[in-house]
Amino acid sequence: MEIKIMRNILDRNQNKADEVRKLLERNNVLMANLISSPGAGKTSLLERTCEELGEKFRIGVIEGDVTTDRDARRLKKYNIPIVVINTEGGCHLDSHSISKVLGEFDLNNLDILFVENVGNLICPSQFDLGETFKLAMVSTTEGDDKPDKYPMLFREAKAVLLNKTDLIPYTNFSYESFRSDLDRINGRVPLFEISCTAGSGLMEWFNWITEQVASFRIKI
Amino acid sequence: MEIKIMRNILDRNQNKADEVRKLLERNNVLMANLISSPGAGKTSLLERTCEELGEKFRIGVIEGDVTTDRDARRLKKYNIPIVVINTEGGCHLDSHSISKVLGEFDLNNLDILFVENVGNLICPSQFDLGETFKLAMVSTTEGDDKPDKYPMLFREAKAVLLNKTDLIPYTNFSYESFRSDLDRINGRVPLFEISCTAGSGLMEWFNWITEQVASFRIKI
Repeated sequence: MEIKIMRNILDRNQNKADEVRKLLERNNVLMANLISSPGAGKTSLLERTCEELGEKFRIGVIEGDVTTDRDARRLKKYNIPIVVINTEGGCHLDSHSISKVLGEFDLNNLDILFVENVGNLICPSQFDLGETFKLAMVSTTEGDDKPDKYPMLFREAKAVLLNKTDLIPYTNFSYESFRSDLDRINGRVPLFEISCTAGSGLMEWFNWITEQVASFRIKI
Repeated sequence: MEIKIMRNILDRNQNKADEVRKLLERNNVLMANLISSPGAGKTSLLERTCEELGEKFRIGVIEGDVTTDRDARRLKKYNIPIVVINTEGGCHLDSHSISKVLGEFDLNNLDILFVENVGNLICPSQFDLGETFKLAMVSTTEGDDKPDKYPMLFREAKAVLLNKTDLIPYTNFSYESFRSDLDRINGRVPLFEISCTAGSGLMEWFNWITEQVASFRIKI
């Protein structure tokens, strides 16, 4: 019974996601759905990205949070359009919640729409929001076992960001173990080894997302 | 419609949780439901706890994971009864899954049953498993904003464990901000500031859980 309900929920989510995707493509807006554990550094990545690419691209952000607008307040200084979705207990965003807030953006004046999903490695990977692609983020302090323990997200992701690499010396994180699990799950996925606080490794990420915007425009 | 379905699911979960709680009380078993983000240190806490209290108490563990038995394998060396529940995509344990595996334990020969819930700060806090109490764990590297962003867990918890305190010097974690949010949400909750890898602050935790077993036995 619960499996049937879940299938209905996912089917309805998929239909709305397809609508959202078409609307964004008509408006030339790339949407990236950023997924990680709580505190892995999603908002920090958006801060660094707005600083570096804020003049090159017109960036918008949808902030998904159980409650509070703390992450949105951190991004206000970049003077970009931000909409907060509070799930009030929900552990993921769905395409209906995205569809409802898209009207608050001027899509004609947007190049990239980042969705910062609710901090959670599980359900966000199961719900298509109509995004162009998903991004998986994980921080070294969470341990090297995350791809193996949460394979769906790492299989679904178009790129993986490994954050807090500056803290590796203070942890027992094994890069070899992380990399070999990731290779097994999604061998060809680009991996960016970054530190949002130390500012390292970010240039490769900025170049990659810039290329994604270019190839998205050619494709659609 | 979805709200009604959710209410039904929670009602059925509550009924089974009440059964589980009665069964455990009849057998004098304290069950602690340990909840945190992925990689905050739940398994490390259980490792330290088995090392320190493994002779004093008969400890059992239920390991909740989306997939894999990696955490269970880390605990095997303590020669304790361990049962793994793989949720296969589910983001939390529920009382039905706990009820199904309780038969695999010899409850007459158990003092404490730790449940390591699926790594997630949201849904696990909404599902009563029949536990004696919930424990909230958070690591300093996740940032100081977790109580404010995930208040339900911190409101529900009988104790809070702040792990990875040895890494504070390398992060922008503000103890004052964390503490003031936690005080507002659950002012009287005991807070244990620990590092499972450095071994610091653990004696207070060992003493507290020992007292909990004693007062649980007097109460039931």
